[in-house]
Amino acid sequence: MTVDTLNPKVLKTKYAVRGTVVIRSMEIEEELRKNPKSYPFDKITSCNIGNPQVLKQQPITFFRDVLSLVQNPRLIDHPEAKNIFKGDVIERAKEIMFHVPGGVGAYTHSQGIPYVRECVSKFIEKRDGYAVDPNEIFLTGGASQGVKDLLTSLIRDNNDGIMISIPQYPLYSASIALLGGNQINYYLDEENQWGLSRRELDRAIQKPLESGINVRAICVINPGNPTGQCLSAESQKGIIDFCLEHNLVLMADEVYQENVYYKTKKPFYSFRKIALDMGSKAKDLQMISFHSVSKGFIGECGQRGGYYQTHGIPTDVKGQLYKMASISLCPNTGGQIMTSLMVNPPKKGEESYSQYIQERDNIYNSLKRRSIKLANTFNSMEGVTCNMSEGALYLFPNIRVPEKAKQAAKKKGMNPSTLYAISCLEQTGICIVPGAGFGQKEGTFHIRTTFLPPEDQFDDVTKKLSQFHKKFMNEYR
Amino acid sequence: MTVDTLNPKVLKTKYAVRGTVVIRSMEIEEELRKNPKSYPFDKITSCNIGNPQVLKQQPITFFRDVLSLVQNPRLIDHPEAKNIFKGDVIERAKEIMFHVPGGVGAYTHSQGIPYVRECVSKFIEKRDGYAVDPNEIFLTGGASQGVKDLLTSLIRDNNDGIMISIPQYPLYSASIALLGGNQINYYLDEENQWGLSRRELDRAIQKPLESGINVRAICVINPGNPTGQCLSAESQKGIIDFCLEHNLVLMADEVYQENVYYKTKKPFYSFRKIALDMGSKAKDLQMISFHSVSKGFIGECGQRGGYYQTHGIPTDVKGQLYKMASISLCPNTGGQIMTSLMVNPPKKGEESYSQYIQERDNIYNSLKRRSIKLANTFNSMEGVTCNMSEGALYLFPNIRVPEKAKQAAKKKGMNPSTLYAISCLEQTGICIVPGAGFGQKEGTFHIRTTFLPPEDQFDDVTKKLSQFHKKFMNEYR
Repeated sequence: MTVDTLNPKVLKTKYAVRGTVVIRSMEIEEELRKNPKSYPFDKITSCNIGNPQVLKQQPITFFRDVLSLVQNPRLIDHPEAKNIFKGDVIERAKEIMFHVPGGVGAYTHSQGIPYVRECVSKFIEKRDGYAVDPNEIFLTGGASQGVKDLLTSLIRDNNDGIMISIPQYPLYSASIALLGGNQINYYLDEENQWGLSRRELDRAIQKPLESGINVRAICVINPGNPTGQCLSAESQKGIIDFCLEHNLVLMADEVYQENVYYKTKKPFYSFRKIALDMGSKAKDLQMISFHSVSKGFIGECGQRGGYYQTHGIPTDVKGQLYKMASISLCPNTGGQIMTSLMVNPPKKGEESYSQYIQERDNIYNSLKRRSIKLANTFNSMEGVTCNMSEGALYLFPNIRVPEKAKQAAKKKGMNPSTLYAISCLEQTGICIVPGAGFGQKEGTFHIRTTFLPPEDQFDDVTKKLSQFHKKFMNEYR
Repeated sequence: MTVDTLNPKVLKTKYAVRGTVVIRSMEIEEELRKNPKSYPFDKITSCNIGNPQVLKQQPITFFRDVLSLVQNPRLIDHPEAKNIFKGDVIERAKEIMFHVPGGVGAYTHSQGIPYVRECVSKFIEKRDGYAVDPNEIFLTGGASQGVKDLLTSLIRDNNDGIMISIPQYPLYSASIALLGGNQINYYLDEENQWGLSRRELDRAIQKPLESGINVRAICVINPGNPTGQCLSAESQKGIIDFCLEHNLVLMADEVYQENVYYKTKKPFYSFRKIALDMGSKAKDLQMISFHSVSKGFIGECGQRGGYYQTHGIPTDVKGQLYKMASISLCPNTGGQIMTSLMVNPPKKGEESYSQYIQERDNIYNSLKRRSIKLANTFNSMEGVTCNMSEGALYLFPNIRVPEKAKQAAKKKGMNPSTLYAISCLEQTGICIVPGAGFGQKEGTFHIRTTFLPPEDQFDDVTKKLSQFHKKFMNEYR
């Protein structure tokens, strides 16, 4: 087993979010541990990935209270429990334990605990105004696992094409490469707030169709990652029509559905609701919608919980999806239970409600403030433009890199965006990801950054970024 | 997306442990809920999978106490904590939180939390008497994920062969089928307590080599699943020599290393220890050893924790394995922390020690008693022979099925072992798995069953199995 005899699809796979720049940041972290003076900063600020709790975002108290009780059911009946836990926390833990008789240490149904799938189906019904059968829900260990299972089912060989946005989240390009499929790019329109037009989809599919590619599915991330847009209902209808016309499965990555910062002007609509509102067309649509506990305001990434919901997928195909899930036996139970809590939080009138709402709103409001502050910082930089984040947790500023920087990058065999990100890391300790890892329109250069550093350190981050940018521009002017 | 246009490798994949018989058992469970009198039994007894806690095995108190604290760190400093948790529980939770600064809600290093990998490496050193670098440890969501990642790296196409035992655990056949590899069978010797001889390996590899197959790896499950043997050191040395001779990666599934019931007569040796004891040969061996929190006496299946340890794998290949892991971001943190607890339980002199030892020994002793009782039950049946379980959680009795039963099975398009298992399910509610799903020597028929039903119901289970067997034999005599 040498690198030369490995599966070439593995070698070809790229995953920028934890790629070169991030690996370098871990090395620097190690060097700092040994010699705290080895760099002009004392710690790494990880803006490479939407991982809020590593940057001091606090978990929601109700969720963790319930989770600690189901992990340790002897506490539920402990005489001290009432002094530590609110009444509705204890009630909820009892309700969950009733539905999970083996407790969290037992394998569950491979599709997930029936009770949790029922909670999810009620949440979807409330969100969309249309009921959904709990058997359409598949619980997963984070959204990534579901995406990989779906793509595994769809991709037979290199003649099967999957449409993905550029820019995209590299889970998609990585999974397609690993499965040996054909990646078909469609472009989001940066000048129009990363919007997506039916015209661009028609353009993108033309060549593959002409060369006989079986285009099987289109992945749409809404709200966008790394681009932060909320698609308009109009645009979503166009995508659905496009799917129906070309018989494509719509893979709707909706993990940022709770991260929406302008709810009146730019709301989130689920693709399912838009499709069902379109009436009889909906019954011909094949769609999978993905959701996760890692994002939203809860940010419970490490718990690895999530689900996908199928729509219009034949029963025998769902049987195959079940079989795929069963090979890993089941998603972790803690993540499943966290999913039930996400979709079924404390209700008005319950003891934990006001604390829950306060914690939620504090996180939301702070995310919005930080997103605006960071976008403004980028927009004040020379040669940088940055769309505001309507949703999700990222900004994807466009950096007009000087010619000399492009040459320097070329010499190092790097994309200019990688040179920018690596330089930023080494000078500031702030870890951002090169746009090259997400895909960018030929000749444009971006970086992706979260806006997750804690609010009390945020001014320091924006200041460092601005100073770095000036220095970079001067160096290569 | 229809079943006809799915990836044919998905369709071809079989996973018996949650296959036909188990799906039927879930239907029956549903029917019983609606009409409790619809079957001559009132509940399903799941013996299809090693899932102890669903059958009332209690979790280890220390582990769950610590887990509930790290899920909910506010409890650690709560004034009531001392009245609820032992001192060493609180200390351990503090130690873990110190090493996991983002808490359990943050993504970790894709290879796993460094602290947990250090705990694992100390455990391995203590077990084998040879130190191991924590960077050789990859934490995973149960052993299955690691096995799949490894096979994905190894299998390029149908010309790449992976050797697996017959009988085997269907994770291996399923993953090889899904990846389009070439499954090469070697046979365990039922007459010799499911032993494995060098001669059989030489026989098994001959034809594939002659037909130009690149044989890349051999999977060995020790203690055996479904067969329950502990391989002798002699046999293990033979396997290692065989790997060196043919340049094979040894994939050592050692998840049952703590389920060993005759420690003096038939001990467990890790392949790593055997290899390192062989001296200079060890440095040429490439090996991956898998472990899990799902098995042993702790049986924390639902937590999805585990690891693999690499040996002799080049750094650049480990870089590729890291990349693969990073696409799923990280294993769930609860499972990682459970792994740290498994490999670093309370020590002599600590407050929780005596309770831990008592809980552990109660489970062990009960497992051993049940394994013997069930094997004796099978051996007392007409036409059945069953090797004792030296390790793991299963028995794999050989059932000499009457000719008429074979014909009846043929008519239904079933393997006779499937007819046996389905009939047993429908008459007793006991869910066992047909040997066909694990592989069996041509012309022999087996079933796999766990010995996990609770001890106070065990006599009822053995009685039902005996009655069913008599009836089956009479029906088809």
